[in-house]
Amino acid sequence: MHIGLIGLGKMGFNLGLNLLDNNFEVVAFDVSEEARTKFAETKGEAAASLKELAEKLPSPKIIWSMVPAGEITEKVLDELKSYLSEGDILMDGGNSNYKESVERAKAFAAHGIHFFDVGTSGGTDGARHGVCTMIGGDAEVFKTIEPIFQAISVENGYHYAGKSGSGHFLKMVHNGVEYGMMQSIAEGFEVLEKSDFDFDYEHVAKVWNNGSVVRSWLMELVESAFSKDPKLDAIRGVMHSSGEGKWTVETALELQAATPVIAMSLMMRYRSLDEDTFSGKVVAALRNEFGGHAVVKR
Amino acid sequence: MHIGLIGLGKMGFNLGLNLLDNNFEVVAFDVSEEARTKFAETKGEAAASLKELAEKLPSPKIIWSMVPAGEITEKVLDELKSYLSEGDILMDGGNSNYKESVERAKAFAAHGIHFFDVGTSGGTDGARHGVCTMIGGDAEVFKTIEPIFQAISVENGYHYAGKSGSGHFLKMVHNGVEYGMMQSIAEGFEVLEKSDFDFDYEHVAKVWNNGSVVRSWLMELVESAFSKDPKLDAIRGVMHSSGEGKWTVETALELQAATPVIAMSLMMRYRSLDEDTFSGKVVAALRNEFGGHAVVKR
Repeated sequence: MHIGLIGLGKMGFNLGLNLLDNNFEVVAFDVSEEARTKFAETKGEAAASLKELAEKLPSPKIIWSMVPAGEITEKVLDELKSYLSEGDILMDGGNSNYKESVERAKAFAAHGIHFFDVGTSGGTDGARHGVCTMIGGDAEVFKTIEPIFQAISVENGYHYAGKSGSGHFLKMVHNGVEYGMMQSIAEGFEVLEKSDFDFDYEHVAKVWNNGSVVRSWLMELVESAFSKDPKLDAIRGVMHSSGEGKWTVETALELQAATPVIAMSLMMRYRSLDEDTFSGKVVAALRNEFGGHAVVKR
Repeated sequence: MHIGLIGLGKMGFNLGLNLLDNNFEVVAFDVSEEARTKFAETKGEAAASLKELAEKLPSPKIIWSMVPAGEITEKVLDELKSYLSEGDILMDGGNSNYKESVERAKAFAAHGIHFFDVGTSGGTDGARHGVCTMIGGDAEVFKTIEPIFQAISVENGYHYAGKSGSGHFLKMVHNGVEYGMMQSIAEGFEVLEKSDFDFDYEHVAKVWNNGSVVRSWLMELVESAFSKDPKLDAIRGVMHSSGEGKWTVETALELQAATPVIAMSLMMRYRSLDEDTFSGKVVAALRNEFGGHAVVKR
């Protein structure tokens, strides 16, 4: 089976190698010539443009887009529209907003093109050796591409989630859950660190990973982090985020679903971005106004 | 090595079998004659009282108490004091408050008795086939009992955590982390359930358990729950708690550690215990007072 792969970043390149390992014929495009050259040195083939990529694929064409969500995905999918025709299959493996995926599926369907939203988890190592995917789109057409997911995923690691949008929706909520789990683990270590015991965090994480109820991949990653830097002295607690946590909370608001822990995890990330807060100044000023409580001066 | 085991409940009995499998000689006591009889039918020996249990053990005696935290533990440890003497080792494997364990260690130390607080995780199956333990107490004396933990724990599943109290402290925080992880997972499924997609939760949990960042034992347990009852129709969302989550939050307050997610998880459990809330009535009444907004009448 021929597959066109768009995007040879950390995830895309590894996904390409994974596909090649599984005897798919892969032709790939990336804006970076360096990435294309590197990919051409594998068993894969490189295309110099989206147009060339489309031309190199037999019909019906199967294309997997693995570029950053938002503007770039929009631009790529837009351009592809003119190179694809009825019966072709297009997959978006980025972290696109599920609402956009619902709209895109409709727009492509108007031209007879089958669009699938593919939520992808497992990091770069997963992309390379066994990915986890959640796929939304037409159930019948999915059968055509199911062998791809069967081949590149870990065992039981792909799931046809339902109609268009469901794949990215599931990935979005997955990331929301991830935010809460991460914050909860982090708060546990915060309590340990503030206590007057002298815990060895790497070993704490290790014992929590072996036989305990909280064992998890995230706890394994924490163990790994502490093994390299026992008190994480080298980094600051600034927690960036990339969108899916925010979307999960926005979606929860739309659905009137009570998700205080996921929302709070997101807020704690925002709080971590500020050295100081205006809300903190307001509270300090109010305490001073009504009770004469001391404020900390700049 | 002889071990005296107190408490033959679900955890204690399985722990006894685990110890016997590992060629320890176990004499056990439980208030229930039925439990004692059942244990005497294994390779283990039963004692009819705490006194008899202590008498049956060679010196230095090693005793593992596995009874519910609080009053029962207090009573058992109190009575044991008169049967133990210098050099004996006493372990509390229940979910005792770490502060009580610190005090108990001091009180026993005054009589030359070595007290260890043993946080235990992994459920009844863990107790039977490979437990996870976090142990606080004297580092030197720990070497004497380390072979026990080596034998009955899963690989890397025991951890000498430090001075007295650290074992139960670590178990307490472990449970706090567990509260947050559970609530986060639960909120994710809440969003899925309120969406207009038609997800198969067993399969969602399964794919999240294979290759994704949120894979965890808790997600496996959720998968198992959904496999038996796809929408959990048979149960109500009433979330009880047994103390360690509350202690974690109390400890966080004492230490001025910001743990909003663990605290919120606890509050959501409390909220779930009430059919209706007084705070809800107050907010509804206020909205009615200032804006004439409709209230829901009883």
